[in-house]
Amino acid sequence: MTMAKRDTYTPESLLAVAVEVFNERGYDGTSMEHLSKAAGISKSSIYHHVKGKEELLRLAISRALDGLFAVLDEPEATGGRAVDRLQYVTRRTVEVLMAELPYVTLLLRVRGNTDTERWAMERRREFDHRVADLLKQAAADGDLRADVDARLATRLLFGMINSVVEWYRPGHGGAATSEEVADAVVLTAFAGLRTPGRD
Amino acid sequence: MTMAKRDTYTPESLLAVAVEVFNERGYDGTSMEHLSKAAGISKSSIYHHVKGKEELLRLAISRALDGLFAVLDEPEATGGRAVDRLQYVTRRTVEVLMAELPYVTLLLRVRGNTDTERWAMERRREFDHRVADLLKQAAADGDLRADVDARLATRLLFGMINSVVEWYRPGHGGAATSEEVADAVVLTAFAGLRTPGRD
Repeated sequence: MTMAKRDTYTPESLLAVAVEVFNERGYDGTSMEHLSKAAGISKSSIYHHVKGKEELLRLAISRALDGLFAVLDEPEATGGRAVDRLQYVTRRTVEVLMAELPYVTLLLRVRGNTDTERWAMERRREFDHRVADLLKQAAADGDLRADVDARLATRLLFGMINSVVEWYRPGHGGAATSEEVADAVVLTAFAGLRTPGRD
Repeated sequence: MTMAKRDTYTPESLLAVAVEVFNERGYDGTSMEHLSKAAGISKSSIYHHVKGKEELLRLAISRALDGLFAVLDEPEATGGRAVDRLQYVTRRTVEVLMAELPYVTLLLRVRGNTDTERWAMERRREFDHRVADLLKQAAADGDLRADVDARLATRLLFGMINSVVEWYRPGHGGAATSEEVADAVVLTAFAGLRTPGRD
């Protein structure tokens, strides 16, 4: 049996432990017992911080979403040509994904069985739609190649961006920096998606 | 209780049912009971066809791998400039992925707890390495942009290709054809990855 340690958790540090367990076992497969074991404190200590695992999910997903939606309000994302704004949003989305890796990983893996999961999926779709709208505007401006359908281009762009959670492990020897990865995504995607000669 | 139906399964049709259940519940979360219910035949009828669920996994994964590795032996994948071979392999990988969607989906989701799962992961890595070698050769030929690291480029290329399993649903109204998706992936990736002016 694990000795319970004194509860010195802050909301943030408890959340970090919970997100790790959610990502490893899946949210559905995680019980309060699992969280208690991973944190090394009793279930009632956890209940002192939050109402239950669904609140931890909501807090974790909020952290990911706040980071992503904040990008859309940055000056470079709101002014200028759509293609430049799209390119900026792509770069910053990759950076937020890497800075908030476990939180965004959780967001991308959530499948809706509870209200919180359905809300997460809804908000994620909303973010995707905002980016898709930028992409459509850039296409209408003639700044993206006309021979790739805008819906397909959006899916492939997010496919590339979101795949980063599958392999990026910060701090590993030889790991690329956040900037190198963001540069690679932007170069790969945009030298392809921009109409040649117009960038 | 479900009425058991007469066992008219062929190895292929039983496999198709099993793969659907594996993809829905996860391989770990699937019992012989689940397979029996989904197929509508008794467990002993299933055992008449295969030794157990691990054999079904092996058969399903083999089908995905056979399709993928066959691409590497096609004439367009073995002769000519590396960049053209890489582009051909990219297109054909997307096509195989869409033609064998449930089987490749299973391959991409497998995590190694059993011998068969570890073998699947090993063979998948082998495929990825074969493609990565082509990409490195194309970079060495000067046909890919030098400002994206070859390892990162490989990961992003597979990120884009593999993301197709997340959203492609054949036969849906308005769904893109296999050729449209393959074209989009190749255009998006290669107009980006090729050194400008050399394609």
